[in-house]
Amino acid sequence: MSKSIQRIGVLTGGGDCPGLNAVIRAVAKTAIHQHEIEVIGIQDGFEGLIENRTRPLDFADVSGILARGGTILGTNNKANPEKYYTGDDEQGEPIFINAVDKCLATVEAHKLDALIVIGGDGTMSCAKPLVEAGVNCIGVPKTIDNDIVGTDITFGFTTAANTATLSLDRLHSTAASHHRVMVCEVMGRNAGWLALHAGTASGADVILIPEIPFDIDKVCAFCESRMTERRGFSIIACAEGAKPQDGEQVVKRRVESSPDPIRLGGIGQLVADDIQKRTKIETRTTVLGHVLRGGPPITADRVLASQFGYHAMRLLMQGKKSRMVVMQKNDLSDVELTYAANKQRLVPTDHVLVEVGRAVKTCFGD
Amino acid sequence: MSKSIQRIGVLTGGGDCPGLNAVIRAVAKTAIHQHEIEVIGIQDGFEGLIENRTRPLDFADVSGILARGGTILGTNNKANPEKYYTGDDEQGEPIFINAVDKCLATVEAHKLDALIVIGGDGTMSCAKPLVEAGVNCIGVPKTIDNDIVGTDITFGFTTAANTATLSLDRLHSTAASHHRVMVCEVMGRNAGWLALHAGTASGADVILIPEIPFDIDKVCAFCESRMTERRGFSIIACAEGAKPQDGEQVVKRRVESSPDPIRLGGIGQLVADDIQKRTKIETRTTVLGHVLRGGPPITADRVLASQFGYHAMRLLMQGKKSRMVVMQKNDLSDVELTYAANKQRLVPTDHVLVEVGRAVKTCFGD
Amino acid sequence: MSKSIQRIGVLTGGGDCPGLNAVIRAVAKTAIHQHEIEVIGIQDGFEGLIENRTRPLDFADVSGILARGGTILGTNNKANPEKYYTGDDEQGEPIFINAVDKCLATVEAHKLDALIVIGGDGTMSCAKPLVEAGVNCIGVPKTIDNDIVGTDITFGFTTAANTATLSLDRLHSTAASHHRVMVCEVMGRNAGWLALHAGTASGADVILIPEIPFDIDKVCAFCESRMTERRGFSIIACAEGAKPQDGEQVVKRRVESSPDPIRLGGIGQLVADDIQKRTKIETRTTVLGHVLRGGPPITADRVLASQFGYHAMRLLMQGKKSRMVVMQKNDLSDVELTYAANKQRLVPTDHVLVEVGRAVKTCFGD
Amino acid sequence: MSKSIQRIGVLTGGGDCPGLNAVIRAVAKTAIHQHEIEVIGIQDGFEGLIENRTRPLDFADVSGILARGGTILGTNNKANPEKYYTGDDEQGEPIFINAVDKCLATVEAHKLDALIVIGGDGTMSCAKPLVEAGVNCIGVPKTIDNDIVGTDITFGFTTAANTATLSLDRLHSTAASHHRVMVCEVMGRNAGWLALHAGTASGADVILIPEIPFDIDKVCAFCESRMTERRGFSIIACAEGAKPQDGEQVVKRRVESSPDPIRLGGIGQLVADDIQKRTKIETRTTVLGHVLRGGPPITADRVLASQFGYHAMRLLMQGKKSRMVVMQKNDLSDVELTYAANKQRLVPTDHVLVEVGRAVKTCFGD
Repeated sequence: MSKSIQRIGVLTGGGDCPGLNAVIRAVAKTAIHQHEIEVIGIQDGFEGLIENRTRPLDFADVSGILARGGTILGTNNKANPEKYYTGDDEQGEPIFINAVDKCLATVEAHKLDALIVIGGDGTMSCAKPLVEAGVNCIGVPKTIDNDIVGTDITFGFTTAANTATLSLDRLHSTAASHHRVMVCEVMGRNAGWLALHAGTASGADVILIPEIPFDIDKVCAFCESRMTERRGFSIIACAEGAKPQDGEQVVKRRVESSPDPIRLGGIGQLVADDIQKRTKIETRTTVLGHVLRGGPPITADRVLASQFGYHAMRLLMQGKKSRMVVMQKNDLSDVELTYAANKQRLVPTDHVLVEVGRAVKTCFGD
Repeated sequence: MSKSIQRIGVLTGGGDCPGLNAVIRAVAKTAIHQHEIEVIGIQDGFEGLIENRTRPLDFADVSGILARGGTILGTNNKANPEKYYTGDDEQGEPIFINAVDKCLATVEAHKLDALIVIGGDGTMSCAKPLVEAGVNCIGVPKTIDNDIVGTDITFGFTTAANTATLSLDRLHSTAASHHRVMVCEVMGRNAGWLALHAGTASGADVILIPEIPFDIDKVCAFCESRMTERRGFSIIACAEGAKPQDGEQVVKRRVESSPDPIRLGGIGQLVADDIQKRTKIETRTTVLGHVLRGGPPITADRVLASQFGYHAMRLLMQGKKSRMVVMQKNDLSDVELTYAANKQRLVPTDHVLVEVGRAVKTCFGD
Repeated sequence: MSKSIQRIGVLTGGGDCPGLNAVIRAVAKTAIHQHEIEVIGIQDGFEGLIENRTRPLDFADVSGILARGGTILGTNNKANPEKYYTGDDEQGEPIFINAVDKCLATVEAHKLDALIVIGGDGTMSCAKPLVEAGVNCIGVPKTIDNDIVGTDITFGFTTAANTATLSLDRLHSTAASHHRVMVCEVMGRNAGWLALHAGTASGADVILIPEIPFDIDKVCAFCESRMTERRGFSIIACAEGAKPQDGEQVVKRRVESSPDPIRLGGIGQLVADDIQKRTKIETRTTVLGHVLRGGPPITADRVLASQFGYHAMRLLMQGKKSRMVVMQKNDLSDVELTYAANKQRLVPTDHVLVEVGRAVKTCFGD
Repeated sequence: MSKSIQRIGVLTGGGDCPGLNAVIRAVAKTAIHQHEIEVIGIQDGFEGLIENRTRPLDFADVSGILARGGTILGTNNKANPEKYYTGDDEQGEPIFINAVDKCLATVEAHKLDALIVIGGDGTMSCAKPLVEAGVNCIGVPKTIDNDIVGTDITFGFTTAANTATLSLDRLHSTAASHHRVMVCEVMGRNAGWLALHAGTASGADVILIPEIPFDIDKVCAFCESRMTERRGFSIIACAEGAKPQDGEQVVKRRVESSPDPIRLGGIGQLVADDIQKRTKIETRTTVLGHVLRGGPPITADRVLASQFGYHAMRLLMQGKKSRMVVMQKNDLSDVELTYAANKQRLVPTDHVLVEVGRAVKTCFGD
């Protein structure tokens, strides 16, 4: 048993995500109330650990934050202990230093017996050198993309999917009124979970995800076929990482018709341009960016995040070291801290939601 | 293989629930698009089957209904084929008949090769005599209470929990401003899932569920202790089936102080009255009733309901008979149609959310 | 010009209401940023003024509160300076004192040059003796009932009407699915604005408000006529102060059938009971209570509350005394502080929304 | 009196807008129920009038549509009776015809005694030649931009402002967590109402509107000053038509640094790029496009739209001709049909919300 734990630090790293505050609250309240452990909040991710920017978190500090978006600790998706940017040299080149010792100094200064590290796989990797230097780190995975390996789900995803769905619902009424094609690009550079869930939930007619490269001809033909139906229109949910089958050709086509293809907007815009040009159907694009990250977590994420925070403390009290909290088949469990590093949980092309989509006549462009 | 299936009926029974239309849509679109099967909608649950009130459902009929609350088919939570009310006799006593033959006649008249029956355990039991008479019925479980045995979750629950949480969030600000105790009663006669999830998600200070009988003295003491804190107030999430430990005494106390205890309102009101009388803290009650059943399903329920509808068709096409769709450990599966009859999935008293609650200083009244 | 104003106090009194924090923010930021005036927050309404419970409000204290429900200052709808409860005497009778001097002492102690008093007509009346004693008070009217005389609208109402409408929308889908009558009781003891707006917005079939006494026979007949239509059901938006035309008879009928008519629930329950008994249509009641007061203000109320707070400071700087901010014909203006005392802005029976309702076949029960 | 009106047509033109269905419903229900007038729905704006695409609207057709976004009639923002596109000629040039006679033929064919024309100033102008040809047209103004001259407000605006505010709220939490500047571009090419209201309601730190040309240096300086504060970040609400004071220089600067300035994104992106380059603060842009047009209208817009629809019918029955419904100082009134043509209601630079903004330390960039 870890009788010796008297004080812990908690930090949030990487891009923000609904539910971070719920984890912080569960960690801190469990530590303070159940285990009489003191909690130190480390500000702005690893930058705060390096720069020793901290503040004590007492029970009142974490009361009333459960439903709030963002993170009361601040976050940072750049500061890496092993390669920390400290300014530019005389030639204007960036200077990076190894700041692991600075991290250890902060841990030492506050007499932290462990760190709870809330973040994505990048954040877990950042914690690795600290673990190797003897600091116990327990990880809590977060990503709105739901692509962390080892856990069936992470908090933030359900809220982001819901926010995307609500926007797709709104586009539905305007698409139908104008008989347009509406392309809605959502986050998801490598994994299409968000587009798949939001597309399924909003009844999108076309869903384009990175895992299923699409044929633009098939997408166009599908949209055209829908226009002949009563009150024809189409909604396309498109992951930002969706890939055309003839990827190279598309880029070539793009370059030919424009001097600056990269700045033209993302894949959503490209798909919309192609559809409008080929089918003559009015097509519009909407890009849901950072609004998907913000805002209060919905119920399911508040519940999940609370469990994750609680479980992180439980692992700690069980004497476990260097573990990451996961949810597997509805059960809280744990894997090695950097289990998810450099991997990605992609949508299997025979995933049940893909099957559901095909069954109800959704076009995946393949 | 069930090559012979050419036409199916679909009905919704029991209390309504967000996601019913999403199931109907998935069933009908899968049947029509993937299997070229005709779909007949049976109106108002088993009443429509008995009275032969039906309408064909084509692809357009089920388009655009995914996000709509309620059920386009109507529902009925009274009509039971084996005991069907047909009016009163001369003495004013109700007359019940066995209407199974009438159901079979409707099945026959429309040449239905199977029925998709969407409802709770009562609805599945109603389907039993039809199965015994040779009608293949595939069940899709629904309940906002999440208490159906055999499946980890049913659609509707997540939406209801979210609606309850949003109301609890609202009560939070008014409780804090007035330094009051706010008791919020939510559905859940036997199982406390809704109160537990909504209470956890909203950071309720007290959660009262049927599975953990409460001691009103402890609840009062807890609320009083909170008043001494800065900006003291308390939020109580109370299942309608929450039970005081000294149940009999409470009723006795109630009867003594009032001529008509039963009509005084539910357990929420009783708890509020007791707290206010004993602690002198201003206490108010809100009862969230039918608003929890209505409204559009949130993303997770639309996705779950779509899977359930799709899977019901898949079971049918696999030649399965008399099965109910379930979700177990994240996998779609199936159990015997009436597997859940007369059972209830209760909250284990050591459920992880109860543990989480205790860890973060939630009072369960025990 | 009021060059002499260097420090002001601000308090919120009466029942809480969405937008209070937006007023506090606008008052404090305008005072600090535009006029370099210090702001003292007085806690829990006049109780804080009497008991000298205050805290300074700086710019950071009022940042980020615009969208939050409730009031960061706390409120109190009982403390009256002229009749302040201080405990019970030996016979258990309450002791009230005149606490105006205590209020003046607090004003003196903090060197407050003026008070911004945010509340309903009761709160304005409480401020009167302070004005008479020479304290400049500027009032900002709030009420979710929208019944304050002298102003066309107050903040909080639009949010409450929207919350009520969303609940009525939810009831719509469950009513339609079950072919039921759903009675939804909303706040409004004397004025029917909330029921009228929410009823209009949700397309309620029947709207019952205090200003138009209803004939239950007509309501029943109307609901029955709707049942014969396709998918018949009815939604009734009922103000808590709605009155039957035969008020006495109704109460008499009630008393005869029950020993404790007062405890049976409000007018919504009474209407529902009568409809179900007479028409045999399943009828359910929902009472939207304190959820209407809580939660974040919607856009229109945030904008209105910000204007009110700003205008209160503008009046003060113009040297005005004892005035209440109002909105008349879209223009910010002011009236005497207690202009609204003991009056109520009722719905005229020929109000355009009543006309609209009658035109689209809404039943008002008359 | 217009005893002779027996049948009317109703159409929606221009971009869609929340509340269109509420107007259609109020027009049709008032016509059918109160005046026993038949209603013909004309599909897809003036295109439907030209092409004779209509459908009768009975009471049931317009029931249940009050809360739905979009328009059940479809709309079209291109079809102009006087200049109607019919295809391309052999050289690929578009062919336009005068289709006023076709419109008149449709009016004749259905024996329409009047048209209710719901749309923006473009739609009203399209109706002008029909009026000159003797067809009575009553206009109902709509625009989410709130820039129609002659009316204080139009339906759709309040909903769009609320949707924009909710997105700005979401950006708030992510900006604060990452200490970023977040630029949110909202609709408003000529008038800044949407940015002004949503910016005010969300507590945006900077509001940029077309009516107040901004100095990018001042915006940068303001954002920088905020970073030195605790948890520094800034939210910028930017109308799509916001203009830099040194407009030409900005475009020049842009052209120099990019080969294709027009395709680089709107003013929001430009502002963000400049801020990031100059201040080194991480800056992100979000463009809220068509999501602002879609979705269910909020309460206030449903109420307003219902009044507008009702009042259009009232004007018609009063025998008025060629009038547009307006709201002036809270009263329903009417102006000449094309009163608003080629004009725009801009934000006065001394508007009270600009004053409020300046008072609470909002930067307008000037």
